[in-house]
Amino acid sequence: MASEKPIVAVTCTAPVNIAVIKYWGKRDEELILPINSSLSVTLHQDQLKTTTTAAISKDFAEDRIWLNGQEEDVGQPRLQACLREIRRLARKRRSSGDEDPLPLSVSYKVHVASVNNFPTAAGLASSAAGYACLAYALARVYGVESDLSEVARRGSGSACRSLHGGFVEWQMGERADGKDSVARQVAPELHWPELRVLILVVSAEKKLMGSTVGMQTSVETSPLLRFRAKAVVPARMAEMTRCIKERDFQGFGQLTMKDSNQFHATCLDTFPPISYLSDTSRRIIHLVHCFNAHHGQTKVAYTFDAGPNAVIFTLDNTVAEFVAAVRHSFPPKSNGDKFLKGLPVRPAPLSDELKAALGMDPTPGGVKYIIATQVGPGPQILDDPHAHLLGPDGLPKPAV
Amino acid sequence: MASEKPIVAVTCTAPVNIAVIKYWGKRDEELILPINSSLSVTLHQDQLKTTTTAAISKDFAEDRIWLNGQEEDVGQPRLQACLREIRRLARKRRSSGDEDPLPLSVSYKVHVASVNNFPTAAGLASSAAGYACLAYALARVYGVESDLSEVARRGSGSACRSLHGGFVEWQMGERADGKDSVARQVAPELHWPELRVLILVVSAEKKLMGSTVGMQTSVETSPLLRFRAKAVVPARMAEMTRCIKERDFQGFGQLTMKDSNQFHATCLDTFPPISYLSDTSRRIIHLVHCFNAHHGQTKVAYTFDAGPNAVIFTLDNTVAEFVAAVRHSFPPKSNGDKFLKGLPVRPAPLSDELKAALGMDPTPGGVKYIIATQVGPGPQILDDPHAHLLGPDGLPKPAV
Repeated sequence: MASEKPIVAVTCTAPVNIAVIKYWGKRDEELILPINSSLSVTLHQDQLKTTTTAAISKDFAEDRIWLNGQEEDVGQPRLQACLREIRRLARKRRSSGDEDPLPLSVSYKVHVASVNNFPTAAGLASSAAGYACLAYALARVYGVESDLSEVARRGSGSACRSLHGGFVEWQMGERADGKDSVARQVAPELHWPELRVLILVVSAEKKLMGSTVGMQTSVETSPLLRFRAKAVVPARMAEMTRCIKERDFQGFGQLTMKDSNQFHATCLDTFPPISYLSDTSRRIIHLVHCFNAHHGQTKVAYTFDAGPNAVIFTLDNTVAEFVAAVRHSFPPKSNGDKFLKGLPVRPAPLSDELKAALGMDPTPGGVKYIIATQVGPGPQILDDPHAHLLGPDGLPKPAV
Repeated sequence: MASEKPIVAVTCTAPVNIAVIKYWGKRDEELILPINSSLSVTLHQDQLKTTTTAAISKDFAEDRIWLNGQEEDVGQPRLQACLREIRRLARKRRSSGDEDPLPLSVSYKVHVASVNNFPTAAGLASSAAGYACLAYALARVYGVESDLSEVARRGSGSACRSLHGGFVEWQMGERADGKDSVARQVAPELHWPELRVLILVVSAEKKLMGSTVGMQTSVETSPLLRFRAKAVVPARMAEMTRCIKERDFQGFGQLTMKDSNQFHATCLDTFPPISYLSDTSRRIIHLVHCFNAHHGQTKVAYTFDAGPNAVIFTLDNTVAEFVAAVRHSFPPKSNGDKFLKGLPVRPAPLSDELKAALGMDPTPGGVKYIIATQVGPGPQILDDPHAHLLGPDGLPKPAV
């Protein structure tokens, strides 16, 4: 209250991304450098996003962080790595002297508050959006304008891919210090407007192995993972880039499915083996292949990360029929009206031929709900001061 | 009736084998030549066996075959390949002239009857035992004494491993004609008397993809399978042979599990992907790893073929405790008294520590029953004429 401008606050949003060429395995645990490049699609923030406010003030006694309203331990190593890295970049910029000198904010402590607009219980990887949003907000509040790949990456490897909209590759890089392990956009948000994304949220039965421990075990024990990283992924990166640039859905879809399967194959080749796919996941895989076989072409593609939820890619003219097929194979148990969230999908009839082609007994409740979304932009700054998650006192605003 | 000795009949039995280094993929579909060597354990025929009678007579008008009492089409290609091959060997032996000339039986037609002492519905691979038994019986009835690997292999690749007892390797060979693709014994039946085998029969929910079509698709589409065959299996064959010769259960068990997992990983890397493991299979995998972790050593190992049933290897002093653990995790639904078949297993208590270590909710009925068995001998000739499945008229005897 005594000083003018007691705190400087910035609020940003960042998207979730879904890898179509998978990242699994680090060559450097500390710097979070991957054993292969990866490529992802950035999802639209209208459906899935993290919102983060970062505030700095000379009056703050210590760094603090609140996630979804709960204060968390700011001392955890990955968070500390992000803070250290952003402050290093801030100091570097000051010392290079190519800008008006700002107040010595780099020494100020920071308060961070972050919320997701989707339930954590959905099992959607939120760490990528979370760390991308953190990196973006910290950069704005500390006045850093350089590439943020490293800041985000130090929080969660795949977070660097959430720094851009559209289609994004994370180049593995070759340098030991990781300076060339950066994310860059392959094609912008509006490049392929027909592309649609459906997230099929599946009932998980138990806690799964976390991806950090899982990928470390895979690197140590799976001969197939080492081969994949070295001999398979480079050509797939090039092929996936071509498919995206040419909007070749057949190629894009098939390679997306193959790469998801290969990632899960390397999990199974890990010792002890890791299984993220459930029987429902496998039923979805079967459904997609039956759907495509019926149509005589790849109209729908699946990909699975470190959990049983399916992410489906398709084109706008196929969404309605595929959703009807999902509804047929996994009849909603109780929440029929809430089965479909996100973008509107018109009801569509299912032909008897297609029903017969799906050829499996329905599994009621296997899919809890569907989130329909599309390709979206990268992180955004919210100019409206009402958007801040932290009040003028630097503490989380009470939930409205 | 007119002739003396109207028919000549031979009855044999042959065992099931379980691969611990897996065969998956052919380099020659016609000759059934594999892309890698494999190694198996021959199971005891007291629990699982095929019995086959082959009878020849100059009065038989055509080749005929009955499987489990049902006449089958003798024209199917693999059966024809076996018959062609055995007659080729029989002619070769005659022409080499190193034996008393027998009647010109090589031109006689053959009648074959074959039965399994285990239900086909159990989902146990019966084709290996079946074709090994066929090859063995045909060889005896036609007077062939040479290596039968090719005869059995032409029926079903892994059948050549059922021609020997104990521990058996199928050397992939290098020749284009397959003459060096043969099975040979690595260690005899009584080499490792403490070794025990438990077959956990799991409820399958649907028809699975057959292994012939499955492995062909894998060879065509899985980059990981090609790498496995070329770069991983050779060292594993040597290591597995060492473990068996030294009776190193730790090494044997771990490599058995790793190779099963890698085989299923290559199935998942196939396009479209192949899944033979069910959620119950995965729960068994988890149970085994928990059991071993609790004991701080590999006391139990699993392997899975092209289906959800688990085959467990352990030593005699661990059988009772592991069966108790299975019974705890998969409480029998109704057939409590028939839950355990085969070798007797004494009831054993389960410590509270182990129960806690298994750490999963019981799945009633997940395992239908257990067959307890051990390593066994190769094919046997039954001298008792009452054992013949075919009567003096060359037709199947009525079931008793």
